[in-house]
Amino acid sequence: MLIVQKFGGTSVANVERIKAVAERVVNTAKQGNKVVVVVSAMAGETDKLINLAHQVSPNPSEREMDLLLSSGERVTTALTAMAIDALGYKSIALTGWQAGIITDTVHTKAKIEKITADRIVNALNNGYIVVIAGFQGITGKEGEITTLGRGGSDLSAVAIASAINSDLCEIYTDVEGVFTTDPNIVPEAKKLEKISYEEMLEMASLGAKVLQTRSVEFAMKYNVPVVVRSSFSDKPGTLVTKEDKDMEKVVVSGITYDKNQAKITLIGLPDRPGIAAKLFTDIANANIVVDMIVQNVSSDGKLADISFTVPKSDLNKALKIAKDIATELGAQNVIYRDDISKISIVGVGMRTHSGVAAKMFETLAKHGINIMTISTSEIKVSCIIEAKYTELAVRVLHDAFNLADKPTV
Amino acid sequence: MLIVQKFGGTSVANVERIKAVAERVVNTAKQGNKVVVVVSAMAGETDKLINLAHQVSPNPSEREMDLLLSSGERVTTALTAMAIDALGYKSIALTGWQAGIITDTVHTKAKIEKITADRIVNALNNGYIVVIAGFQGITGKEGEITTLGRGGSDLSAVAIASAINSDLCEIYTDVEGVFTTDPNIVPEAKKLEKISYEEMLEMASLGAKVLQTRSVEFAMKYNVPVVVRSSFSDKPGTLVTKEDKDMEKVVVSGITYDKNQAKITLIGLPDRPGIAAKLFTDIANANIVVDMIVQNVSSDGKLADISFTVPKSDLNKALKIAKDIATELGAQNVIYRDDISKISIVGVGMRTHSGVAAKMFETLAKHGINIMTISTSEIKVSCIIEAKYTELAVRVLHDAFNLADKPTV
Repeated sequence: MLIVQKFGGTSVANVERIKAVAERVVNTAKQGNKVVVVVSAMAGETDKLINLAHQVSPNPSEREMDLLLSSGERVTTALTAMAIDALGYKSIALTGWQAGIITDTVHTKAKIEKITADRIVNALNNGYIVVIAGFQGITGKEGEITTLGRGGSDLSAVAIASAINSDLCEIYTDVEGVFTTDPNIVPEAKKLEKISYEEMLEMASLGAKVLQTRSVEFAMKYNVPVVVRSSFSDKPGTLVTKEDKDMEKVVVSGITYDKNQAKITLIGLPDRPGIAAKLFTDIANANIVVDMIVQNVSSDGKLADISFTVPKSDLNKALKIAKDIATELGAQNVIYRDDISKISIVGVGMRTHSGVAAKMFETLAKHGINIMTISTSEIKVSCIIEAKYTELAVRVLHDAFNLADKPTV
Repeated sequence: MLIVQKFGGTSVANVERIKAVAERVVNTAKQGNKVVVVVSAMAGETDKLINLAHQVSPNPSEREMDLLLSSGERVTTALTAMAIDALGYKSIALTGWQAGIITDTVHTKAKIEKITADRIVNALNNGYIVVIAGFQGITGKEGEITTLGRGGSDLSAVAIASAINSDLCEIYTDVEGVFTTDPNIVPEAKKLEKISYEEMLEMASLGAKVLQTRSVEFAMKYNVPVVVRSSFSDKPGTLVTKEDKDMEKVVVSGITYDKNQAKITLIGLPDRPGIAAKLFTDIANANIVVDMIVQNVSSDGKLADISFTVPKSDLNKALKIAKDIATELGAQNVIYRDDISKISIVGVGMRTHSGVAAKMFETLAKHGINIMTISTSEIKVSCIIEAKYTELAVRVLHDAFNLADKPTV
C-alpha cells in the first residue's frame, strides 16, 4: 500500500516523540508499504513565533508572517528524516515547495491550487521514505512562501494523499479517533469505527477538534480515505470515508458542543426587505463568521427580531456593527448573551429516520434545559442553550440516543 | 549610497536587539541610502538545532542538516523585516533562494557560485529595504537548500554586496572593529582605522575571530570595501580595504594568538624522498587541516625530524595516523605537545622593512620565552611557544612594536 501518515505538533513535540514517530513510520515500511510522512511544527513552536512577531510589530505583514511560521515545519521535517535514517531506512525531507505544493497568493490562509508531485513520486520509486513539511506551500508565479492556516498540515496530508493516489491517509493526533462525544464529559463515550465525510464535517465545524474542516472537505471532494488515530498508542482509529449502507442504520453518530459562541439579537426592526442583507453584509465585511441566524416577525407583522451567533472573540466587533445598524434603521434594542452553548446531534441516518429532532427537544425539556434557538441541516440538529447546562445536555442526549451501546472497536 | 549591513547572531539575539537593528537600518535609509540587510540566526539557535539533530541521529545527513539549520535565519529575516516595517519603512524579507544565492552542492559548507540579484535590485528600486537570510543558498539544478558553513552570513553579505555593486558592506558584530591585539590581554590595544585585505586574512585565520576568512578572500577578490563595527555602539569601525601607501608605513598592524593548536613530532625518520608526502596525504585524507610544518635533518644527514601543528580537536586522530606511519617507516619515536600557543605579528609593512622577525625573536628571548617553531610569510611571522607564556608574549610584543601609540580613531 501507499500510505500518507501525518503527525501533528504534539506527536513531534520533542526528540523522544520524533524518534517514536520514526519507529512507527519504519514499522509501516517494514510491512511492505511505501510511506509519505507529513509533519507539523513542534507543539507550541508556531505560537512562540507568532508571539515574537507581535513583539517586533503591532501589525506584522502577512507575507513575512508566512516566511516566519514556515520555519517551524522545516525543523521537524529535517529531524524526522534524520531519525528515520538513523533506523537504517533511506529518507528525504522536502519543504512545501520542494514537494510541489502550489497555492494561491492569500498569505496566512492560502488555498492549495495543485500539487506537482513528481519529486515525491520519484523519491518513493527510489526507495525513500519521504518526509514533507506540512502547513506550507509556495505561490506558483512569484515563488512566495505561503501557509495554509491553522490545522493546515491536515490539509497538506490529504492533498498529497490525493495527488499521489495514496491508498490511505492516516492523521496521527493526541486522541484515539472520533468519539460519540467528548469523553471528558461522558466517560462511556465510544470511539466510532467509521464515519462519513458529511458527518465528520459537521463534527469538525461544530467543535470536535480532531480534523480541520477544510481537510475533510478536500478528502470528501477527492474521495481520500482518512484514518484519525493516536500517535501514542497502536489502537486502530476512526475511518472517515464515503457514506455506506451501514452508516444509514445509525440515526445519531455523535453529539458535539461549542461553548465559544455568543448570540446577538436586534429587537423591533422594521420588517422591510433588505434589512437582513444589510446587517450580514456589514458583518461579513468585518471578517466575522456568522453561524446560526434566526428571524421572527412579530404578531402584527410590522416588526421583526433577528438573532445570530458569532464566535465569542468577535462579539464586541459584531455588537458595534449591530448597534450602528440598529440606530440607522430604528430598531428598538440590541441585546446579547455570551453565556450560551451550542449542542448538536449529528448523523447521516437522520435523512431516513423521522422524529430525531423531536426526541432531542423532548430530552432537553425533560431535564429542564430551555432551548433558545434551533437550527437544522439534513444530518444535524443544533440547539442554543444556557452554557451552564452544556455537560448535562451532552450526557442526557448521549444516553437518549444510546450512543454508549455502539460496538466498541 | 547603496549599503549592505550584516548583523550577526548576538545583534539579533532577541526582540529588543532586532528592534535596535531595525532602528539602525532605518536611520541609514533616512540619510538617503539604499539598504540591504543580511541577518544570521539568533545567537545560540544554530547550536540548539545541531544539538537536536545529534539527539535524533548519531550521524545526521548533511542534506537534512542544511534544511534544519536554514530555518534559523528565516526567523530573524522575517522578524527584522517586520520590525523595519513597524517603523514606517517598506521592507521585504527574502530567503537565500529568493535572493538568488546559488551555491554548489557541498552540503554544510557550500560555496557561492553566483548571485542572481534581480529580485534584490527590483525591490530596492521599488523603495524597499531588503532583508536577506544569511548563511544559506540553493543549488542551481536540484533546488536543494545548502548552508555556507560557520560564519557563512559574512560571506553572504560580501557576496551580495559584490553582486549588486554596493558601495560598502558593513559587518555588525559584538566588537568595535579590528584591534592591534586582544584588548582582554592588552588593555591599551588600539582599534585600527583601516587594514588591508591581506592583513585581515592573516588576522582572521590566526584567530582574530572578527570576520570569517572566506568572506575576506571574497571581498579581496571582488574588491568589496568592508567595515567591521559594533551593533552596540555608534563608533566607526575598521575599514578592510585594498592596501595603500599609508598602510606600508606601518610595519606591524596587529598581534594575534591561537591557543587551539597541538604539535606532533616524528623523530628519526629515514631521510628519503616521499616521506613527508605520504604523511601529509594521509592526514589530509582524514580532513585534518595542518597549519605549520617544519623538517630538520640530523647532523649525519640520514635521519630527519618532522614537526607539524593541527587543531587541538584533531590531535588524537592525527596522532594515530602519525604513529601508524612511524611504525611503517621505522621512525624512532612520535611525541606531541598540546600545551602550546601560536603568536603572530602581521603587517604589510614587513615587505619593505627588514629586521621585523629579528625584533620579535629578540623580544621573546629577552622575557625568557623559548621559541619552539618558527614560520613566516610575506606579511606575517609566527612562533610556537609554551601556552603559559601566551599573554606575556602578546603584551611584550605589543609594547615592542609600539602598537599602543597608533592614532586612536
